[in-house]
Amino acid sequence: MITKSLDEFSQDCDHIIITGGLGPTLDDITVKTLYEYFGDNPVFDEEYWKELEKRFKAINMKVPTLNRNQAHTGDKVKMIDNSFGTARGMHFEKDGSNYFALPGVPKEMEGMILSYILPHLEEKLTSKVHCETIRTTGLPESILQEKIVDLIESNKNCDVAFLPHRMLGVDIRLTTSDHKSLLDLKDQIVNRISKYVYGFNNDTIEAIVADKLKEQNLTVATAESCTAGMLSAKLTNLSGSSQYFNGGVVCYSNALKRDIVGVDGDLLDKYGAVSEEVASELASKIATKLKSDIGIGITGIAGPKGGTEKKPVGLTFVGIFYKNNVYIKQYNLTPNRKINRQLTVVLCLNELRKLLEKN
Amino acid sequence: MITKSLDEFSQDCDHIIITGGLGPTLDDITVKTLYEYFGDNPVFDEEYWKELEKRFKAINMKVPTLNRNQAHTGDKVKMIDNSFGTARGMHFEKDGSNYFALPGVPKEMEGMILSYILPHLEEKLTSKVHCETIRTTGLPESILQEKIVDLIESNKNCDVAFLPHRMLGVDIRLTTSDHKSLLDLKDQIVNRISKYVYGFNNDTIEAIVADKLKEQNLTVATAESCTAGMLSAKLTNLSGSSQYFNGGVVCYSNALKRDIVGVDGDLLDKYGAVSEEVASELASKIATKLKSDIGIGITGIAGPKGGTEKKPVGLTFVGIFYKNNVYIKQYNLTPNRKINRQLTVVLCLNELRKLLEKN
Repeated sequence: MITKSLDEFSQDCDHIIITGGLGPTLDDITVKTLYEYFGDNPVFDEEYWKELEKRFKAINMKVPTLNRNQAHTGDKVKMIDNSFGTARGMHFEKDGSNYFALPGVPKEMEGMILSYILPHLEEKLTSKVHCETIRTTGLPESILQEKIVDLIESNKNCDVAFLPHRMLGVDIRLTTSDHKSLLDLKDQIVNRISKYVYGFNNDTIEAIVADKLKEQNLTVATAESCTAGMLSAKLTNLSGSSQYFNGGVVCYSNALKRDIVGVDGDLLDKYGAVSEEVASELASKIATKLKSDIGIGITGIAGPKGGTEKKPVGLTFVGIFYKNNVYIKQYNLTPNRKINRQLTVVLCLNELRKLLEKN
Repeated sequence: MITKSLDEFSQDCDHIIITGGLGPTLDDITVKTLYEYFGDNPVFDEEYWKELEKRFKAINMKVPTLNRNQAHTGDKVKMIDNSFGTARGMHFEKDGSNYFALPGVPKEMEGMILSYILPHLEEKLTSKVHCETIRTTGLPESILQEKIVDLIESNKNCDVAFLPHRMLGVDIRLTTSDHKSLLDLKDQIVNRISKYVYGFNNDTIEAIVADKLKEQNLTVATAESCTAGMLSAKLTNLSGSSQYFNGGVVCYSNALKRDIVGVDGDLLDKYGAVSEEVASELASKIATKLKSDIGIGITGIAGPKGGTEKKPVGLTFVGIFYKNNVYIKQYNLTPNRKINRQLTVVLCLNELRKLLEKN
């Protein structure tokens, strides 16, 4: 099967990438097959074995004998380093075609694509294509396109793709061989829809927010109900986050909202936990309690149960306290718990970004 | 390009699945191409358009005119419902071959694979293959295989695959046409490595823990430092989680550990925040404070910075308070912040699972 496919693809393609089957276990036959296919003779690689011993020792383990399978090399192969696992990738060349075998574990494969395959391909390229991605959130792809369709039509030499990440945002990818018109079109689009643009290329919304918080020397505290720690987890994805993130309370019950965060019990009784009033209190009280410049309060009905006619599943309030004001946003999201929680975090980070940009 | 590939693949394959290009924007040409290829005549689908209007109304938006593209159907096509987006899938049949066009957004594609394509394929199958997955955590794939290699060797009619999810766990997938020997082998493997098995097939570790907490009528509270809300977010992934999850504190700074959770300041000074002693205090104090049966304390150096010679990046302590005892685990994880945080959550849930199983 593997050799048949290699035969077939090598007729049409200069570069062939296969993934999976490089593991140490019995079901992994790719390595053996490739050495045979390319007439190479695998020999034990003492140096890499020592490296594996070292790595396992760091996590208090002995390398299993089975991993010896992964410590081989040959005359005709270049081994590709793996920063995330034990299986190295393989690169063979034959009759002008390049064959790459990568592990199937996504993170490991991705690492080798970035560190080895892309630089290799870049070297071989004769014409260069430029690519820029504009990252947006807050509008579905069709509405975004309506807003910029004239710009796309009048820049035909740029390829424009809309890449939605479910309801979390849409990336607009511009591709062309003409670098100047790429930058022109990018500027025009960004000017038109700046409210929805949070970054470019590999920017994440949490990194953008983190940069602004550090620049402005501000600290944040969170009081999360329905998102239950997802926002604080996101805010601390980045190294050095203690500089701007003080901490938070996951106040799932009314008792915690009252006793730990300090929300007025009468407000909870009168308006219910999922209300503008409680979101506002969560935001301001957590800021005071955790001595932070900014307080964020989130309360909502994530679903799938717990909705009523007046307060349906998906109803969510986000409050942001800053400089003695509380900014409140109400969202009517979806019936899906997972989507509602993810979406709330992104929408909230986007509000925070907009607020910080005004500063 | 699309039509050339369809011509080629239809020679060898009965079922052809293509993904992507069903969006409403100008760069999406798959729909038009398919109607032409199969000689079908698309007509506007009034009923689906009304459905789209309804869905957009729920999120306070008007359907953009562009989405009219997505509200077409034809005589020769069966439209496939999309629970997560606006683009419906398409199913054509021609000369005994089946062609499926699905959206490229992973969640939407996955939904249609599960709801439409798999049931369709199952109907057409003449021989049945049985498959069971054993989900494990705590051991690398090579060590797992060493432990069960004799069982695999003596059950040659079962296909055994090891599927690692980075360091988070390994799935062992058994496949065979003989259902009885599948169940036999499964039992033998589970008996041998039961300590590392947390579930089967689509079980998640948080769902297993949630079931046990509900069965035993127990509640949990968390005090998270380095994981900063990731554990509480995981524990509340499931609907009805308020039954067992009370809440938590994300105590990123020493001040919060002391002032909000109630950790003894002298302990913090003497042993440092990342220590067995502080993990233990976090666990017991948060249980008391949030009136919960179980308290979980997590403290560690996630990295990439902040490590010292005595306390390197990756050093992590998990404390679980239950019935007047605190169970402490120390881990020496990796240099990678993201992996350390994810791994800590899974390892912690696995300890909690083992503790609850002893009850």
